[in-house]
Amino acid sequence: MFSQAMYELGTKKSTIRTIFEYGRKRAAVVGEDNIYDYSLGNPNVPAPTYIKQAIFDILNEEDPCAVHGYTIAPGLTVVREKLAKSVNRRFATKFSAKNFFITGGAAGAITITFKALSEPGDEFVTFAPFFPEYKCFVESTGAKLVVVPAQPSDFQINFAEFEKRISKKTKAIIVNSPNNPSGVIYSEDTIKTLAKILEKKEKEYGHPIFLISDEPYREIAYDGIEVPYLTHYYADTIICYSYSKSFSLPGERIGYILIPDETASSEQIYGAVAGAARVLTHVNAPSLFQRVIARCCDMPSDISTYQKNGTLLYNGLVEAGFKCIKPQGAFYLFPESLEPDDYAFCKKAQEFDLLLVPGTDFGCPGHFRASYCIKTSIIEKSLPVFKKLAESYGIKKGS
Amino acid sequence: MFSQAMYELGTKKSTIRTIFEYGRKRAAVVGEDNIYDYSLGNPNVPAPTYIKQAIFDILNEEDPCAVHGYTIAPGLTVVREKLAKSVNRRFATKFSAKNFFITGGAAGAITITFKALSEPGDEFVTFAPFFPEYKCFVESTGAKLVVVPAQPSDFQINFAEFEKRISKKTKAIIVNSPNNPSGVIYSEDTIKTLAKILEKKEKEYGHPIFLISDEPYREIAYDGIEVPYLTHYYADTIICYSYSKSFSLPGERIGYILIPDETASSEQIYGAVAGAARVLTHVNAPSLFQRVIARCCDMPSDISTYQKNGTLLYNGLVEAGFKCIKPQGAFYLFPESLEPDDYAFCKKAQEFDLLLVPGTDFGCPGHFRASYCIKTSIIEKSLPVFKKLAESYGIKKGS
Repeated sequence: MFSQAMYELGTKKSTIRTIFEYGRKRAAVVGEDNIYDYSLGNPNVPAPTYIKQAIFDILNEEDPCAVHGYTIAPGLTVVREKLAKSVNRRFATKFSAKNFFITGGAAGAITITFKALSEPGDEFVTFAPFFPEYKCFVESTGAKLVVVPAQPSDFQINFAEFEKRISKKTKAIIVNSPNNPSGVIYSEDTIKTLAKILEKKEKEYGHPIFLISDEPYREIAYDGIEVPYLTHYYADTIICYSYSKSFSLPGERIGYILIPDETASSEQIYGAVAGAARVLTHVNAPSLFQRVIARCCDMPSDISTYQKNGTLLYNGLVEAGFKCIKPQGAFYLFPESLEPDDYAFCKKAQEFDLLLVPGTDFGCPGHFRASYCIKTSIIEKSLPVFKKLAESYGIKKGS
Repeated sequence: MFSQAMYELGTKKSTIRTIFEYGRKRAAVVGEDNIYDYSLGNPNVPAPTYIKQAIFDILNEEDPCAVHGYTIAPGLTVVREKLAKSVNRRFATKFSAKNFFITGGAAGAITITFKALSEPGDEFVTFAPFFPEYKCFVESTGAKLVVVPAQPSDFQINFAEFEKRISKKTKAIIVNSPNNPSGVIYSEDTIKTLAKILEKKEKEYGHPIFLISDEPYREIAYDGIEVPYLTHYYADTIICYSYSKSFSLPGERIGYILIPDETASSEQIYGAVAGAARVLTHVNAPSLFQRVIARCCDMPSDISTYQKNGTLLYNGLVEAGFKCIKPQGAFYLFPESLEPDDYAFCKKAQEFDLLLVPGTDFGCPGHFRASYCIKTSIIEKSLPVFKKLAESYGIKKGS
């Protein structure tokens, strides 16, 4: 009578969603300020004022028929020219409008890319910890997601495990740096080693292996850490970008796919992207916000709140006795759970009204994710509670 | 190396797109005012001023974090409550928020619905003339599109041919009224007969047959003709609505799926819709425009330009000797071509700088589509040219 597979995808709640919904109910009982909800990655910094100004200017200056009208499927050429110029200026690249396909955020960008590339029997490889929707998006194209176990010492890539999992069936590698959930940025060394392996394997297998860079958190990098621009390191790179986090516009669904000329069969892949977009009901990325990003793409992101929150939470957790990598980017921490069973640990934390997401959901047991894109005052208030939680595991301050 | 199927979908240009692109090139040669481009269905009436006002008000009054933030996948509950109230008021229905799933326009709505319903071996039935993307959208779910030949005398439904094509495999029927490309509205008689047949067949086959009403043109109906509200006639109805045409917002991608409680397995179908939306990279419908439609859904559409254009073009074509059904709704005319081969006819028309789309593309040879959502002055200027075209076929005025 209907598709059972779709029903299951639509009704089986993710752990994150379940925890979040529990939080909403609990907040109604104990009060909004007494629940420490670290579950969701929803930016809590408002869109910069230049976004509002850009919308006002567009509506006042431009032809309304055009502003809200259909655009060609890849997005307005003038917008893509602006994006190309901006990327070229920042990263010393040589892209032009024809390399860009504007999409509905990064979810749109990566899924369209997966579908454009995917052939029967294909495998896509990613590295734990990883964004759990990859599995759903890759499998919906008929391909298989292969997960390389994490390297918890620094959450860079575990290359020994990677080499065991790459094969003739590998169509593409998916990387996400700054990373959700680890908050780590892949170093230039990591990227160079990855590129070297991929080049070797391309030769060995006689076909390209694409490197898909899912980078919604590119602009959220702390302390001047550089996020390597992957097209400089590996030819067969495809970039999937989003303005959801950098401009705090996650609800507006705007991002892009960037296919460099250097990428194998780049023109054909661009064509396949257009076809995948068509069956994925893309039509065009929202037309007003195409114009907004054209006007704002050179403006800086405001990451000060996230940096402040990240430092505050990290120091508090370490002080309480947690083991955790210092935040480098994005707005997540991924500490070790205080017992090996991260589900049991998060259940325990819930008794303290600390809402944390088990690392198992990101392919990395024994850890938990804390999204610190929340009010700073809530983080401050939660730190003694984390301490109490640690104490309940017998960990004493300074011990 | 990439998906050949997606490449073909992305690079094989539709006839409409080819004609439109020819028009752009030709306009550069002969001038914008000397090309009569009836190819595209892009609204030429700007969005009403209340849309602009609503955007300004939302940005000035509401919390920017919420305005541009993620919403739950079905869309904000408060927005869906407003939509339900508005539909209930207009059509004497009893829907609530839980019946609505807000989507990226009608393309999103119908494709998500097809994917939610589709099981292996399923067939979806539609009536010529029909919107050609149905084929792509239905086939992308693995199902088959079955087309019932047109009834060119009035472009209502050819029921004799319909009964030959409905079968145990029929999962759903797709109707589109006011119709693209015929400009016809299905009468209440047509809907009653259709409902009766479907009820009979449901009993005979022992399973529901869904009636999917694709209605982006609902508000564009002339001379007080009523567009029947299908949930009043048939229980297993699913409505796919869009604000693209009624509010001239096609680029913003906003519409909804409405699944009444009366529809068989409505809750499960709602769940399957959520799953289909997930794999189709929906995430949420654009968040600012969710709020815009909530504020504007009770406002009237301005169809005066379309009505004026339709009457002008219809009278001119009839005067020139064309056979055509009087415009009832949407913004298309679908006259008989002046030779049986509608491709040859449209090629001939192109020599006169009249850009028309062959009926074959809509499953109805021997006709052509003229989209009259263009400048009235262009229509006026084109009428003597249509006359010359008719004369080239030996048709004289008054003959």
